[in-house]
Amino acid sequence: MAQTIPVSPLALPMPELGVVRGIRLGAIAAGIRYKGRTDLVLAEFAPGTTVAGVFTKSKCPGAPVDWCRAILPKGEARALVVNAGNANVFTGQAGRNTCEATAEATAKLVGCSGQNVYLASTGVIGEILPAERITSALPALHASLSENGWEEAARGIMTTDTFPKAAMRKAIIKGTEVIIQGIAKGSGMIAPDMATMLSFVATDAKLPASILQTLLSAGIQKTFNCITVDSDTSTSDMVLLFATGAAHNPDIATIDALTDPELADFRTALNAVLHDLALLVIRDGEGITKLMSIKVSGAVSDQSAWRVAMAIGNSPLVKTAVAGEDANWGRVVMAVGKCGEPADRDTLSVSIGGVCIARNGTVVDGYDETPVVAHMKGREIDIAVDLGLGTGSAQAWSCDLTHGYIDINGSYRS
Amino acid sequence: MAQTIPVSPLALPMPELGVVRGIRLGAIAAGIRYKGRTDLVLAEFAPGTTVAGVFTKSKCPGAPVDWCRAILPKGEARALVVNAGNANVFTGQAGRNTCEATAEATAKLVGCSGQNVYLASTGVIGEILPAERITSALPALHASLSENGWEEAARGIMTTDTFPKAAMRKAIIKGTEVIIQGIAKGSGMIAPDMATMLSFVATDAKLPASILQTLLSAGIQKTFNCITVDSDTSTSDMVLLFATGAAHNPDIATIDALTDPELADFRTALNAVLHDLALLVIRDGEGITKLMSIKVSGAVSDQSAWRVAMAIGNSPLVKTAVAGEDANWGRVVMAVGKCGEPADRDTLSVSIGGVCIARNGTVVDGYDETPVVAHMKGREIDIAVDLGLGTGSAQAWSCDLTHGYIDINGSYRS
Repeated sequence: MAQTIPVSPLALPMPELGVVRGIRLGAIAAGIRYKGRTDLVLAEFAPGTTVAGVFTKSKCPGAPVDWCRAILPKGEARALVVNAGNANVFTGQAGRNTCEATAEATAKLVGCSGQNVYLASTGVIGEILPAERITSALPALHASLSENGWEEAARGIMTTDTFPKAAMRKAIIKGTEVIIQGIAKGSGMIAPDMATMLSFVATDAKLPASILQTLLSAGIQKTFNCITVDSDTSTSDMVLLFATGAAHNPDIATIDALTDPELADFRTALNAVLHDLALLVIRDGEGITKLMSIKVSGAVSDQSAWRVAMAIGNSPLVKTAVAGEDANWGRVVMAVGKCGEPADRDTLSVSIGGVCIARNGTVVDGYDETPVVAHMKGREIDIAVDLGLGTGSAQAWSCDLTHGYIDINGSYRS
Repeated sequence: MAQTIPVSPLALPMPELGVVRGIRLGAIAAGIRYKGRTDLVLAEFAPGTTVAGVFTKSKCPGAPVDWCRAILPKGEARALVVNAGNANVFTGQAGRNTCEATAEATAKLVGCSGQNVYLASTGVIGEILPAERITSALPALHASLSENGWEEAARGIMTTDTFPKAAMRKAIIKGTEVIIQGIAKGSGMIAPDMATMLSFVATDAKLPASILQTLLSAGIQKTFNCITVDSDTSTSDMVLLFATGAAHNPDIATIDALTDPELADFRTALNAVLHDLALLVIRDGEGITKLMSIKVSGAVSDQSAWRVAMAIGNSPLVKTAVAGEDANWGRVVMAVGKCGEPADRDTLSVSIGGVCIARNGTVVDGYDETPVVAHMKGREIDIAVDLGLGTGSAQAWSCDLTHGYIDINGSYRS
């Protein structure tokens, strides 16, 4: 980056983090692209760790996405290697070779098969990622791993992020307290479709990979898949969830059925971690000055409500109006109208900041803009639309579109 | 507008215009929203004028769009009234009343039925458009109409446009030279889907409405439907095509079949006018500093190629890279990957400014960025993608995303 980006005004401080038994992690400066900061992260998992993952739907995925997809069916993980600064995307055979070399070097250090090493890369697209930079830094990095390396790891995966992102919850499974803790990175190229950017979540609960996968896939639908910064979907999106089982007595029976009531508390806590991480990504949206929450109700289905909410969240004209603190609700109407979902102008209502502005196809009688104008000056903008057609609903989150976004993205590679 | 917007650096001077026999038009300052400029346009057509139209697919169309859709099946037009500054969208019964009052007042002046008066409005959404402002200005405007009022009309329909837009071609039908001439307005909220913003084209050829409609619908597919400024589709989009027949001897037989070879020259000329007007809209894209042309080939179908081209043209990250003169072709790959159309990373090629940068899933051997960097500094940026899958192709046009766009749209209503 040519310029220094100031910390997002919507940033949150790091939450209190815990220890996920069975995981040691850390970061190191490998000099892949950035100078004077960490850019390579390694996590080592205890034997028996299960894993679930969701990946970008991009037709041009990065080599690490291909790598993870290929090994995921085994459901076992012993290590995770992440680098920032180069996405290893559109790099052909060289990209595949780098994945293989990285996995092999890591496997040797950890004492496992390369097929148990998960890989992720984030940064510039289309430049060759030299494997040596990574493999030569791995031994020192491996020697430095610690149970308390979470914040370091959260910092080591940042690209245009202006603050590190982590979340933690606890839950009870079969009488044992387990922890669910994760980190995320992401700031631009955010319009996930099945997953977003990079996020790694781990728990010390003992759960089979198939259950993990179902919980993760369901959890991201209302979290990572409901955020957007700029409508652009990354080639490198992935969310991985690891379960070491270290919290539980090794002899305890595994939970095999999704219907097991013992899962309820864990499921709630996992969804909360995913929600926290997704919102942290939006709070660091490139150039953000305001966080938008968009609630859509009265749609013909939840899916339809989600599409309408994302159309509002993606509209450059809605986003620039929010940036300009302009209560231009007509642009919300425009975004509803353009998105192709069932909508009827004459049953549509629009509220901003809890104030109903328009109902049944026209502005409400005696509409007083004063409280809406005041709301637009805040940091968190609430937009609500009721389509008046059915019972489908959804919530999405986005950010405003500002000069900061253009400054950051006009010179990303320089 | 709070600020004065400088004229687009991609602006073109007005072309030489002609007279479309059977049409008189003009503009007046009706004080609808703007001060010190014309904002109301009237065109009167000779009896027997046929008409075709295409309209926004928005589910929240403006009252004038509903009005025109309702009368279009008759296929006859005697007048067109357009106002700038207020879109008469999401205005409920009041909006419908304004349409009716405007049509009736115009019909009285022209001596026709209100059902032969076409209406269009452009500007802010959600504010009541007072009919009196229009009806009280119409008599003086009607008295001032002239065969040479085209440039005045092009100026009178501008909103955030920084220059007036018009195009003209001539063609021969049955041995008679006819003229096709049109105007357009549009600068933001441009991602037409069936039509774009406002454009009015007229000819003095004698053609039935059904033939006009087919020619217009086909013509916009490769012109207005291939441009995008910001992915936002207007509630007011419409393109109307009028044919007065005044160039032809009234007794000449009408062309009744689309297959008539006499239509070939006219069709080519009409498509050229639509192309010119669509490109002029992009050349005035809000905040534009660079015009992007995007060619996609090797797709599984033309429709698929069009979707890929539009995804590239709509990507905020591609558009900010172009603004920043950054040859960041990785973002083109990202846009291809995200759009959901069939694509295979390993058969994909990307060229910028005629230089092939990447082929078969990776950067070309010995890629020298120098000529591409030089191309990025120009005003017109050419991006070409070959998907390597089939024979489908398309071309689309867009503009860069700059600080100017945010300045214009952060304060549109102030």
